[in-house]
Amino acid sequence: MRLSRYFLPVLKENPSEAQIVSHRLMLRAGMIKQSSAGIYSWLPLGFKVLKNIENIVHEEQVRAGHIPMLMPTLQSADLWRESGRYDDYGEEMLRITDRHGRDMLYGPTNEELITDIFRSHVGSYKDLPLTLYHIQWKFRDEIRPRFGVMRGREFLMKDGYNFDIDYENAMHAYNRHMVSYLRSYERMGLQAIPMRADSGPIGGEDTHEFLVLADTGESEVFYDSAILDLKIGDRVVDFDNWDDCAAICKEWTTPYARTDETHDEAAFNAIPEERRRTSRGIEVGQIFYFGTKYSEPMGATVQNSEGQKVPVHMGSHGIGVSRLLGAIIEASHDDKGIIWPEGVTPYHCGIVNLKQGDAEADAACEALYASLTALGLEPLYDDRNERAGGKFATMDLIGLPWRITVGPRGLKNGVVELTSRRTGESEELPPEQAIEKVAQIYAKR
Amino acid sequence: MRLSRYFLPVLKENPSEAQIVSHRLMLRAGMIKQSSAGIYSWLPLGFKVLKNIENIVHEEQVRAGHIPMLMPTLQSADLWRESGRYDDYGEEMLRITDRHGRDMLYGPTNEELITDIFRSHVGSYKDLPLTLYHIQWKFRDEIRPRFGVMRGREFLMKDGYNFDIDYENAMHAYNRHMVSYLRSYERMGLQAIPMRADSGPIGGEDTHEFLVLADTGESEVFYDSAILDLKIGDRVVDFDNWDDCAAICKEWTTPYARTDETHDEAAFNAIPEERRRTSRGIEVGQIFYFGTKYSEPMGATVQNSEGQKVPVHMGSHGIGVSRLLGAIIEASHDDKGIIWPEGVTPYHCGIVNLKQGDAEADAACEALYASLTALGLEPLYDDRNERAGGKFATMDLIGLPWRITVGPRGLKNGVVELTSRRTGESEELPPEQAIEKVAQIYAKR
Repeated sequence: MRLSRYFLPVLKENPSEAQIVSHRLMLRAGMIKQSSAGIYSWLPLGFKVLKNIENIVHEEQVRAGHIPMLMPTLQSADLWRESGRYDDYGEEMLRITDRHGRDMLYGPTNEELITDIFRSHVGSYKDLPLTLYHIQWKFRDEIRPRFGVMRGREFLMKDGYNFDIDYENAMHAYNRHMVSYLRSYERMGLQAIPMRADSGPIGGEDTHEFLVLADTGESEVFYDSAILDLKIGDRVVDFDNWDDCAAICKEWTTPYARTDETHDEAAFNAIPEERRRTSRGIEVGQIFYFGTKYSEPMGATVQNSEGQKVPVHMGSHGIGVSRLLGAIIEASHDDKGIIWPEGVTPYHCGIVNLKQGDAEADAACEALYASLTALGLEPLYDDRNERAGGKFATMDLIGLPWRITVGPRGLKNGVVELTSRRTGESEELPPEQAIEKVAQIYAKR
Repeated sequence: MRLSRYFLPVLKENPSEAQIVSHRLMLRAGMIKQSSAGIYSWLPLGFKVLKNIENIVHEEQVRAGHIPMLMPTLQSADLWRESGRYDDYGEEMLRITDRHGRDMLYGPTNEELITDIFRSHVGSYKDLPLTLYHIQWKFRDEIRPRFGVMRGREFLMKDGYNFDIDYENAMHAYNRHMVSYLRSYERMGLQAIPMRADSGPIGGEDTHEFLVLADTGESEVFYDSAILDLKIGDRVVDFDNWDDCAAICKEWTTPYARTDETHDEAAFNAIPEERRRTSRGIEVGQIFYFGTKYSEPMGATVQNSEGQKVPVHMGSHGIGVSRLLGAIIEASHDDKGIIWPEGVTPYHCGIVNLKQGDAEADAACEALYASLTALGLEPLYDDRNERAGGKFATMDLIGLPWRITVGPRGLKNGVVELTSRRTGESEELPPEQAIEKVAQIYAKR
């Protein structure tokens, strides 16, 4: 993309309404614009990151054997009356009346709808195990929406639901979700720690939240620093293998990690003192096993191998897709702006032309642009007639991990400058070596 | 995908609520499930086709230089009061009151919101031309939703908006959209004819609808059969070239083609009689130029090159993404089920194992599956323990364009059977030749 043809309305001033850094930077970097309280338009740069995160979630869910589908945003109130949650949900549920006076609502979650789909179409244990998921906009009518996309009203979430014949199968689904979530966050450059959690209005017996450490987190968290050394890395996971998945979960859930809601002071104090940590955390996902809580009242049963009708064991599993943009920025920024992890960056590499209009500099930039594109990378070329300082400031603000700077002086020596956004370190290289280096960085991913 | 692990709830019976063939087939093929009146869940097979169509639209919009973003589903009523459309829209607009008593609505379209984004961020002619688009769920509270996804209440649409300095630039944007739409429909295997149209509530001076010929179409259409011979094909389009785009538009708009709303009997009768056609048509897209209709009342102005503030010239351009599934099926089916065009098919090729459990047949199917997958194709392997007749009926119903049938008898002679869903023709081939043939078919795309 050439900046001269893009729509990147960066702001020079700090917007007064933004109280936390991710909200401020998303507004300043031209990623979002508030449309009404807690509701945002995703401008091109923000939309691109949102899509990247969504794609990672899709890929990892499919890898785990989960099946993508899509439920609508608006639902009939009837199903929620059947489960008993229509009255429980309170004012956070946006209730709507259609032209025929029917009670509808903007779905805050989808346990009822998916259970209805299941009971309409599945009747035998032979059709299990089954995990369906979707990524869809949801709405919670927060009384005081704030912190930008971190606590908005209209938000994008992945929610998935497993249907299993018994507790043991459902626990494998639970573990599979934990592993797929760990993989997803790691690909996004995030360290998200699974912490035993309370169940809240969805109801559940087993549940873990995933928290990203950041000063602006809504929860106080207590953990054993040993957990920070764990990585999924390159290991090949067989999602059909119960023991494999259980072993990974055990690895991640053995070190102490709890939010203030479930904190156990005695267990925490049993950790060697030098490994005891307290911090703030941002919740970016949660997994639940809730057994037959919905299948029983809603009649979601299957015939088991002995011909008996039994309610299925279910769980639900969510990742806050739009919220993750905020969480990633909270965890990865500096005074100059955002620092995107390579896994989610909107463009792989910036190209800054120090002297737009100079024939040689222009040609060198075009050649870089063409070569990077031919390698399947997406560069963002600042081809505007602006001063170098302004171009650097924009690149630093929007946070592309790598920048190639091209100027007449360097070109005389046959070099361009490759700069890491994270470290600020630069090196001078012939253009083809700079390209190769950038390509290698992304090939590893 | 292996059918034993998929969620494909096909129906044996014809659902009584479905009046038209696409609705019937989408229900029977397990693509959708009604959640409430005019609101559907997209089951895995339906979601996959929806995504394929969405991807084609995205790719062709980006190719034309248009910039993707995303506006929210819920909007504040204030902007619609500013444009004067809040009262005009009537009961089809779903009006919502939030917990603070603020008037909101579920967006049926986005002229107001995009104009607000534009006026907040763009001030100079130098930032033009600019075309922004998004693909988002919209809502129209139809009094009598029917025909499945063809006339639902919650529906997925691409809507795009161009901002230009003057009429001539806006006309190029108009032409660019027409060409990108023609390309999009052609890739979906559809012949969509641009027809001069009335403007409706969006208001407009120049506007064309795109109609797919089908008996169940809501509009009566009159056209010169010469238009059916036109193809974009492999020609390379330079979307920056005004003359190129205008020439293609001229080619497509010269033969007579009108809906009953704008039909001109005299002009129609001037066509040689053997080329005069009347038919029914399904609207799958529309492009509008509406000048300064929104930019003037809403103050979306830029400084022109002489330093004067002038309102921008706008247009809006829509493709009915979810509706297209219905339109494609209306245009492409037979008594046995759907016939997907290769461009949108959910899976590239079916594999039917005639004798599940036979070691040789199972191994041959697994080898085919692995080879097709390695070539970047997605096969759907019916590995269930079902009779051949049932497997064929399912494959015919869900409409994959190609099927490879594997049985012990053929394998003895070293062959499998490759069958075209469209023609029903089969040929016996060694497995590797069947793979090669399927790969070639999709490589051309």
